[in-house]
Amino acid sequence: MDDLITAILNGSRRAVARLITYVSDESPQVAPALMALYPHTGKAWVIGVTGAPGTGKSSLVNGIAKAYRAQNLLVGIIAVDPTSPFTGGAILGDRIRMRDLSGDSGVFIRSMATRGSLGGLARTTRDAIRVLDAAGFDIILVETVGAGQSEVDIVRTAHTTLVVEAPGLGDEVQAIKAGILEIADVLVVNKADRPGAQKTVSALRMMLDIGHPASRTRMTAHHGQLVAIENTHTHTDEPMWIPPVIQTVATDEKGIAELIGAIQQHREFIQAGNLSVALERQRIEIELHERLREALIQRLLQTTPPDYFMGIIDQIQQRQLDPQNAVTAILANYEQMISS
Amino acid sequence: MDDLITAILNGSRRAVARLITYVSDESPQVAPALMALYPHTGKAWVIGVTGAPGTGKSSLVNGIAKAYRAQNLLVGIIAVDPTSPFTGGAILGDRIRMRDLSGDSGVFIRSMATRGSLGGLARTTRDAIRVLDAAGFDIILVETVGAGQSEVDIVRTAHTTLVVEAPGLGDEVQAIKAGILEIADVLVVNKADRPGAQKTVSALRMMLDIGHPASRTRMTAHHGQLVAIENTHTHTDEPMWIPPVIQTVATDEKGIAELIGAIQQHREFIQAGNLSVALERQRIEIELHERLREALIQRLLQTTPPDYFMGIIDQIQQRQLDPQNAVTAILANYEQMISS
Repeated sequence: MDDLITAILNGSRRAVARLITYVSDESPQVAPALMALYPHTGKAWVIGVTGAPGTGKSSLVNGIAKAYRAQNLLVGIIAVDPTSPFTGGAILGDRIRMRDLSGDSGVFIRSMATRGSLGGLARTTRDAIRVLDAAGFDIILVETVGAGQSEVDIVRTAHTTLVVEAPGLGDEVQAIKAGILEIADVLVVNKADRPGAQKTVSALRMMLDIGHPASRTRMTAHHGQLVAIENTHTHTDEPMWIPPVIQTVATDEKGIAELIGAIQQHREFIQAGNLSVALERQRIEIELHERLREALIQRLLQTTPPDYFMGIIDQIQQRQLDPQNAVTAILANYEQMISS
Repeated sequence: MDDLITAILNGSRRAVARLITYVSDESPQVAPALMALYPHTGKAWVIGVTGAPGTGKSSLVNGIAKAYRAQNLLVGIIAVDPTSPFTGGAILGDRIRMRDLSGDSGVFIRSMATRGSLGGLARTTRDAIRVLDAAGFDIILVETVGAGQSEVDIVRTAHTTLVVEAPGLGDEVQAIKAGILEIADVLVVNKADRPGAQKTVSALRMMLDIGHPASRTRMTAHHGQLVAIENTHTHTDEPMWIPPVIQTVATDEKGIAELIGAIQQHREFIQAGNLSVALERQRIEIELHERLREALIQRLLQTTPPDYFMGIIDQIQQRQLDPQNAVTAILANYEQMISS
């Protein structure tokens, strides 16, 4: 394991691949390696890419990776697939992407699929990012397949988040429906050569005006009617980032330069002042909470005898005990076990 | 509060509405009321409806509600909107639906939007279901707006889960991408009068053949190639439910009778033998885990001094401590606080 750590710090792709496999398998031997690597992390810029299926995220990630490679930067790509192993999505995705970027030793691509809980996937994604970071990758692209809240949690580990839209995916802008507009640092309308692209751009701009936390006004319900009211944050002196809307045709590499420029501007905005430090604290706090939740429930399950649990479930099922009182009882029992 | 409980048990819509508002606000006074109602629950049949945006879930829920009303059953509808309050989706949805079902005192409609954590939304949805159940509603429809994993968690509280598709939403069947095919008890291809409906039906049938846990074969990766292998469950004597694929045009009330029939068949399948009891145990277990997770982290946060936390975050940010060791330290500190 010591050799593996040294190899990773020297940028060995093979060592990186091996440790990420351990991470993905949630192997217990991974913890000491991650501890050893941790002091060497914090240098990479992590870019999250999310959006509904059909928006062309993978082609976009491809295009972004190529642009950074042209700047001679090392690029890691983590494609997170929260779908089930049944679909084989992760494997297929890898193979399609590989065609275009394969042979370039400055790019490392890895798909991570769920093996149960999505909480687990957020953790393993974070750990995989750290392995790439410690190995010297400059840019790490984290792409998620879906557009739900859990994917948002995964993308939240990023420094810059791109939310990708495409025209003609239905009646409405997908990101608005999925409620992920708020997390966007840069909005991308991909497939911008298709009919309806301008409509999508306009819809996004309008939603930004109405709904984005950084905008001047927001929507609220007033006597059952939606009205725009002034945002309480309007009059503070805090610097504000208004997400730009960038149009791309990723398959033709159109708009990629503008997109890279917007990412760079966001990075400079974040790194100016203390925003970077504050955001990192926030990310650490979120991670600690998630890990603590997991550690606490594991500890409780280890400490509580299975028979005790079965008895409680029986009582709930027979309507002799309600779930809330059951939790109080289990907690009291747990704390007694810990204390004795 | 005692009056409120009595009124709910007598089926008062106003009392139901008031308690669900308390539930939705996560008001602390809700706990004793839910405890009092719990022994009166377990009679309603809960139907979850999920699918990507644009599949016409709301119209479908409308149609299903009308069909059950024709059978003189009391119908509760909970529309869960995991999107942000910015979009106002929940409010609008209510108003649109209301037009069609309003004036019928046998239908109760309520939207629940997220107020922070999605875990919270799953819990409040469960509690709202119990209020309706105790009030004597026979059928409870739980509709989610999105199609991500978190929406799936919410729908999992249901006895019968419908996954809704529609033709022409993009290149691929959305449910497959979102990985929610496995939770479907009944698959619905809505907007079946649109071009491509047969293609969607075929795609779903094929995916069922390949991927559904109940099917005979499943996909696996073998030397990097996807191959179909025999499922290990094939030779057991367990009864098997193969999800039917039902075509509907909800706006024209076409196919609704077939859908109601399929739901009834699934209900009879579940209620035959001990499957019903086993599934309820599973749901209770999931709920207990979720509630325990929440209660444990709350307890830890109450017990741990904020300064201690801040110190830990500082050390992580300065790369003097890694997140894993930080969690071990926080847990040890917590257990010491509990014991002393």
